[in-house]
Amino acid sequence: MDELRVAFQGELGAYSELAAREFFSQPITVCPLVSFEEVFNSVESRECSQGIVPIENSLTGSIHENYDLLLAHNLFITGEIKLRIVHNLIVNPGVGLEQVRKVHSHPQALSQCKEFIRSLRTAEPVPVYDTAAAVRLIKDQNLRNAAAIASIQAAIDYELEILKSEIEDNHKNFTRFLIVSPDQEEIETDGKTSVVFSTQNIPGALFKSLSVFALRDINLLKIESRPLQGDPWKYLFYLDFEGSLQEIRCQRAIENLKEITTFLRILGSYHQGKQTEGKLHQR
Amino acid sequence: MDELRVAFQGELGAYSELAAREFFSQPITVCPLVSFEEVFNSVESRECSQGIVPIENSLTGSIHENYDLLLAHNLFITGEIKLRIVHNLIVNPGVGLEQVRKVHSHPQALSQCKEFIRSLRTAEPVPVYDTAAAVRLIKDQNLRNAAAIASIQAAIDYELEILKSEIEDNHKNFTRFLIVSPDQEEIETDGKTSVVFSTQNIPGALFKSLSVFALRDINLLKIESRPLQGDPWKYLFYLDFEGSLQEIRCQRAIENLKEITTFLRILGSYHQGKQTEGKLHQR
Repeated sequence: MDELRVAFQGELGAYSELAAREFFSQPITVCPLVSFEEVFNSVESRECSQGIVPIENSLTGSIHENYDLLLAHNLFITGEIKLRIVHNLIVNPGVGLEQVRKVHSHPQALSQCKEFIRSLRTAEPVPVYDTAAAVRLIKDQNLRNAAAIASIQAAIDYELEILKSEIEDNHKNFTRFLIVSPDQEEIETDGKTSVVFSTQNIPGALFKSLSVFALRDINLLKIESRPLQGDPWKYLFYLDFEGSLQEIRCQRAIENLKEITTFLRILGSYHQGKQTEGKLHQR
Repeated sequence: MDELRVAFQGELGAYSELAAREFFSQPITVCPLVSFEEVFNSVESRECSQGIVPIENSLTGSIHENYDLLLAHNLFITGEIKLRIVHNLIVNPGVGLEQVRKVHSHPQALSQCKEFIRSLRTAEPVPVYDTAAAVRLIKDQNLRNAAAIASIQAAIDYELEILKSEIEDNHKNFTRFLIVSPDQEEIETDGKTSVVFSTQNIPGALFKSLSVFALRDINLLKIESRPLQGDPWKYLFYLDFEGSLQEIRCQRAIENLKEITTFLRILGSYHQGKQTEGKLHQR
């Protein structure tokens, strides 16, 4: 079996790493990188065999940067996983809640724990580029008046204490991650397909685009629009639909869609991702 | 004539202020506020008569926070304006390009001038919460090794020098602003309407929603999806279409749409905004 080298953005213990270990059933080698762009680059250059990136959070919405990067790189989506995001308040050993004046984390994690941080009264949020980096920061500087918000994995990695678990304001907090690879997947059943397209400048163009799926009873799962660069107030549409390109009806829908679009790219067919609570994995 | 008090996010000289002065033909009093939420609050409490917020940039896409705030507040959209964003490199008098080591601005402005900043070779970007605040910062601290990226208005306000104008990487850089008010507008011609809805959990629900417009040859201008809070992987759709609710065919489309949706709110009918280069206005 080939070694799986999986690239992700962030430091060890980041939610992306947890998602990667949940997704792959075999042992993997993880490559933590600084930016999402580097994740795409490392897979395109085949330094890593796969990449994993968050594409959508059930509370805060799409991560548009990754939609744009899917378009800018020649990779395929080959899988997805929906991970429940459980945030923990992490401190150096012996630090009590009443000592916490600063809470370090990624801006999105801070915003997902806004009510909890407010309830601390004396603590203020401090943005850091990555949740696991926030844990490392309070560990390295041995901060006694600060806490970090991150995964349980990050707390264990840095041997710090969890003062409180599940501090996210809304527990229905899931992030959907995509697996990206240089080669397309072939899926027989339980598949979904992602495409990106721009429509001709004709009345009802978007409606006509969606009709190619409705006519064939193909269920749409998500539509996302992004600005078409250099053409103000025109859009690219990212569409996820049920079914794989191994199915005739999906092939026909795509052939039909080509008649209406000026640009169309298949981003990949892959298995619909399971929703998981996440658990601790051996490194 | 009532005094117009217009709230915006940012400091004096921010692009939102420029947009406000372009939009209103009469003199206005502007109220600079720290957050978008405060803009909505100040109009809801009638401290200000109107608010102006950016909703979409032609390069970077929607400002989703303001979509969410439209839903959370009981205000109407009563106008829009599309302002060309011209970025300037602003320095203290006498500072030359070769002295600039740091470039301060709002993260979005920095990202829109990425190529230009890279071309400076020795300069690194430093994020600040507002473009005009970046100008004030280099003025107040009399920085000789730093520049700010902001509007020409901000340069004039703080009596600083423009080293280079139009430094944005892509000149087709427009931001669309919405005017929000407590009372709905009545529009006869040249109107557009914004609505937000969630669909029933039935196959082809989005397709059916768009069909109520297609059947009546009503042109769709934009569709935006946002997560439905507490219901992972379900969405709210924000839709802009041509025509005002004073037109029978639009009223009928909305009546029809109600049959398919579980939630529907009219955000307002208003005149389609003109696209403007922006000019200097007297305060």
